[in-house]
Amino acid sequence: MSSISVVMGSQSDWPTVKEACLILEQFGVDYEKHVISAHRMPTEMFAFAQAAVEKGTKVIIACAGGAAHLPGMIAANTPLPVIGVPAQTKALGGMDSLLSIVQMPAGIPVATTAIGVAGAKNAALLALQILGTTNPALQAQIQAYRQKMHDAAVESEAHLD
Amino acid sequence: MSSISVVMGSQSDWPTVKEACLILEQFGVDYEKHVISAHRMPTEMFAFAQAAVEKGTKVIIACAGGAAHLPGMIAANTPLPVIGVPAQTKALGGMDSLLSIVQMPAGIPVATTAIGVAGAKNAALLALQILGTTNPALQAQIQAYRQKMHDAAVESEAHLD
Amino acid sequence: MSSISVVMGSQSDWPTVKEACLILEQFGVDYEKHVISAHRMPTEMFAFAQAAVEKGTKVIIACAGGAAHLPGMIAANTPLPVIGVPAQTKALGGMDSLLSIVQMPAGIPVATTAIGVAGAKNAALLALQILGTTNPALQAQIQAYRQKMHDAAVESEAHLD
Amino acid sequence: MSSISVVMGSQSDWPTVKEACLILEQFGVDYEKHVISAHRMPTEMFAFAQAAVEKGTKVIIACAGGAAHLPGMIAANTPLPVIGVPAQTKALGGMDSLLSIVQMPAGIPVATTAIGVAGAKNAALLALQILGTTNPALQAQIQAYRQKMHDAAVESEAHLD
Amino acid sequence: MSSISVVMGSQSDWPTVKEACLILEQFGVDYEKHVISAHRMPTEMFAFAQAAVEKGTKVIIACAGGAAHLPGMIAANTPLPVIGVPAQTKALGGMDSLLSIVQMPAGIPVATTAIGVAGAKNAALLALQILGTTNPALQAQIQAYRQKMHDAAVESEAHLD
Amino acid sequence: MSSISVVMGSQSDWPTVKEACLILEQFGVDYEKHVISAHRMPTEMFAFAQAAVEKGTKVIIACAGGAAHLPGMIAANTPLPVIGVPAQTKALGGMDSLLSIVQMPAGIPVATTAIGVAGAKNAALLALQILGTTNPALQAQIQAYRQKMHDAAVESEAHLD
Amino acid sequence: MSSISVVMGSQSDWPTVKEACLILEQFGVDYEKHVISAHRMPTEMFAFAQAAVEKGTKVIIACAGGAAHLPGMIAANTPLPVIGVPAQTKALGGMDSLLSIVQMPAGIPVATTAIGVAGAKNAALLALQILGTTNPALQAQIQAYRQKMHDAAVESEAHLD
Amino acid sequence: MSSISVVMGSQSDWPTVKEACLILEQFGVDYEKHVISAHRMPTEMFAFAQAAVEKGTKVIIACAGGAAHLPGMIAANTPLPVIGVPAQTKALGGMDSLLSIVQMPAGIPVATTAIGVAGAKNAALLALQILGTTNPALQAQIQAYRQKMHDAAVESEAHLD
Repeated sequence: MSSISVVMGSQSDWPTVKEACLILEQFGVDYEKHVISAHRMPTEMFAFAQAAVEKGTKVIIACAGGAAHLPGMIAANTPLPVIGVPAQTKALGGMDSLLSIVQMPAGIPVATTAIGVAGAKNAALLALQILGTTNPALQAQIQAYRQKMHDAAVESEAHLD
Repeated sequence: MSSISVVMGSQSDWPTVKEACLILEQFGVDYEKHVISAHRMPTEMFAFAQAAVEKGTKVIIACAGGAAHLPGMIAANTPLPVIGVPAQTKALGGMDSLLSIVQMPAGIPVATTAIGVAGAKNAALLALQILGTTNPALQAQIQAYRQKMHDAAVESEAHLD
Repeated sequence: MSSISVVMGSQSDWPTVKEACLILEQFGVDYEKHVISAHRMPTEMFAFAQAAVEKGTKVIIACAGGAAHLPGMIAANTPLPVIGVPAQTKALGGMDSLLSIVQMPAGIPVATTAIGVAGAKNAALLALQILGTTNPALQAQIQAYRQKMHDAAVESEAHLD
Repeated sequence: MSSISVVMGSQSDWPTVKEACLILEQFGVDYEKHVISAHRMPTEMFAFAQAAVEKGTKVIIACAGGAAHLPGMIAANTPLPVIGVPAQTKALGGMDSLLSIVQMPAGIPVATTAIGVAGAKNAALLALQILGTTNPALQAQIQAYRQKMHDAAVESEAHLD
Repeated sequence: MSSISVVMGSQSDWPTVKEACLILEQFGVDYEKHVISAHRMPTEMFAFAQAAVEKGTKVIIACAGGAAHLPGMIAANTPLPVIGVPAQTKALGGMDSLLSIVQMPAGIPVATTAIGVAGAKNAALLALQILGTTNPALQAQIQAYRQKMHDAAVESEAHLD
Repeated sequence: MSSISVVMGSQSDWPTVKEACLILEQFGVDYEKHVISAHRMPTEMFAFAQAAVEKGTKVIIACAGGAAHLPGMIAANTPLPVIGVPAQTKALGGMDSLLSIVQMPAGIPVATTAIGVAGAKNAALLALQILGTTNPALQAQIQAYRQKMHDAAVESEAHLD
Repeated sequence: MSSISVVMGSQSDWPTVKEACLILEQFGVDYEKHVISAHRMPTEMFAFAQAAVEKGTKVIIACAGGAAHLPGMIAANTPLPVIGVPAQTKALGGMDSLLSIVQMPAGIPVATTAIGVAGAKNAALLALQILGTTNPALQAQIQAYRQKMHDAAVESEAHLD
Repeated sequence: MSSISVVMGSQSDWPTVKEACLILEQFGVDYEKHVISAHRMPTEMFAFAQAAVEKGTKVIIACAGGAAHLPGMIAANTPLPVIGVPAQTKALGGMDSLLSIVQMPAGIPVATTAIGVAGAKNAALLALQILGTTNPALQAQIQAYRQKMHDAAVESEAHLD
């Protein structure tokens, strides 16, 4: 049983989504990952979303680009928190993905992160923070992770040449 | 049996969508209209889309705003041509609706029209033009409609004061 | 002890933020609300964020407009999930608020919702969904809320005149 | 006699438009292709559009970039459905092409698809879907094509390394 | 014989275009004005553009909104300088009109002015400046007009209360 | 004496501006070219603009990027028609250049062309069209140039492989 | 002798600029205010900018809208710090003003503030902060001003009903 | 004691920020430089800002990208003038950085410069101009620097081939 599900609209999103998975692994949190295309696999998408609570999933991360319907449509089919990662796009930089994900109508939220790799990493961290609200050990891990980021940032000043 | 189905994501889209319906009525073409919210009625949305061919529908018009997933998700569930109308929105003017509808990934097209009322009217006309490809009488009606638009445009010059 | 904290950058955000509070009240979930300006009350902002875990807060909702730094700076000072609501703005519609909130660098996520009132409502629902991941009764309440939204959407079709 | 005409504003659009043609060939549907520049060949453009019905054309696909007038001006001269493909552009990514094509005034619709290659592919599929409304065999082919896309998407999950 | 032709895509552009006409009248330069819709009156548009040189027209001003094809299509049919005025639009402010007019491909220029009323006024002045290149009296009039604008600007300081 | 002056805000604009110059040379029309930076050479800019009529210049082409003030400030200092070419920019694609040039207030027009090379070429052609309004031989040359563009476009169809 | 000069491109900017003046008055700092149009009063603009140091001016605030050249052109003519305030605009919200002011090329900075009234107020405060760098009493006043803003923000929480 | 502090949100901003530092060195003005991440080092950020006046700092330059909170949050914690440099970003070109920095609410200004390297250079020059308001020698240096830029611009014309 994985408490976090990571899905992407296309295999081409994998280089972005992988960054989320690497963080989840770094935290030792179990997760599953799937390619689920909203437009090419709509039936599987609904089945996936509707089964998520039952399976024991706690948070879903969904990455998609362009007219990115995956996060919102999953959100419409589960009461679990859904985190949406807008993929960067060639023509419009990812503004299309961002607006397609974040501008959800009242009733069905998608927790949207930044466009591209930063957003993917933050989706993983946000999922962990959500789990951490009832898991002090995980929350401590997040704090330790932040401490390391902090120290790396402090240390980096030495490398301004 | 209606050859054209007109759906909207919310009752609040009705003032826009009504303009499409008025044109369909003007052409004497039978249509049905429904409120189908992609996010609040996802099951009905899929059922609607999957039943459309069987019911004898030929073209679907779908209007939605913001993270507008309705046209694309219907398109993913039917081989019929789907026309998407981006609703105007308060914060971003409808740019969010437009990008959410038009930027569909390869494989599942949505025939997108202009933002707002002009787009709704054009969705009706586009649906009629599609039906008209195999219906010479309807095509003639479209030509007559255009002739009237033409004449009105010509005539309007007299009103520049 | 409130599990949800709702903060806004300015009293002028209250009409937007109130919509979130009304939903929380409707769900009978305790919350606290504060005006905390990132730029005029930075010290209080940090104190607030750093005290949140200790106080028993589980989720923070923060609404701000323009160069909206409140959600991100709170997020930088707590391991709790922070939900950011971009306020609509006069000059740029809220695109400035949205980008200032959503485009967080890798490391410190903000769960961003839509611009304006829809985003405020969804921030409340997202907070409830987060709490619901370990609270089946709350999750059931969310499902019931969605069922009511669903029924209202279905029913609204009767009002297309 | 080709039921689908594919036109582009410039030879430089060919790499994009070719993707549409490859799909049409894959479906075994006859098509013709032309370079017709709205601005450099206006007379030919009008002649082309005005002759299309007579020639037996059913759907026209038109791709253009920048101040992309080709799809709209063809649409103004034929009652056939016209599908517009916004070419990606160097300076503005294709936002100029998109708005020039999609924001048609009430009366003359252009069925707009996504910017660039995805839009070209979808233009072909949309044209086929339009023909498919009265051609069950073609509609079945579309369903089979979708099934293959579906299967490829499902299969692609195995390649997440 | 009018040396300046002022055309608009729709009667609804008249309040904008009128501002151009008022300036032409103020300068005592003869002009003609027409409603010529690119999409509803394409044949008239081409006839108008192709006849312009012959009629003695020297400069054409064309105002249109949305997918504004009128200025560019006139330009494609005459060697005369064409000035394009992007009409302000409800959904996108006129960004659609602007990009549809200014982003002309190499070969067929449109001299684009600002969105809306300022652009209409400047279109008139630009037309006069073009005529003024070979008409010293007109150029002197322009200089006098500017002197008056200058004086009014200087004088206006007294009204800062 | 050159009837056309071509100026650019920086030597880095030369690759763009050169395209304008090549067209002017192709037409055998005399021109002068200068680097005049609005911000680094403001005095020279004013002197240049104020001397232009006297020198016999008929049209000025000015290219600049970013906060592109050169075309508008030259226009403010001469009654001659000024054509503005927005240079493409690294961060914003040239949207900054475009808005800085085209959005002139009522009173002082700048005839704006497309962003980048297409705009530079069109600036040259527009300048020639302006001179052509009183020079039938030049107007004939423009028509011949267009005929060649037309023929090249027609011929290019043979190269769709 | 005023250490701060406040200029605006048009009398229509006064309602915005007045907000800056009110703050300067509140601080008891002497200032002068002028309408100086970059495009209608270019000579006065240069004279103003070139005389500023001599007159004892320390900081210049310049507000303009659209193709807003005033701040940048003043900056090009004085070594004093110039603060640019982008006026809100009807068609594009002030994005045109912002980009015209902020995107200055390397060499001539303009210290840009927010669009509209907030930017005007901040321009005054920024000017005071600049003077405050060598004026401890003024710096103390700024701190007191901030304390009052802080207290008002804290107090405002009581008004959330 | 350095009168100018240069800070950046991440080591990755160094190539941009370095351009500012090189100019400060060229002017022989002492400065300090630091990596201070608003989100990873919030405590240090506040400490830094709050200590600045005491340390003798006169002006702070802060560069950050994306949801760029560093300049505004420093500004909220010091009465010194803060100059914000929006870093160019991969997805949105830096529009996100720009709006996050420039759209500060009334009360706490950030003196914003252009996106990227030009903005970094101009931040240095602006800081020098601010110091120059009470340092005639430095102001003279600025004038000399401008004279050199001017001469280089004039000279560059010889290199148009």
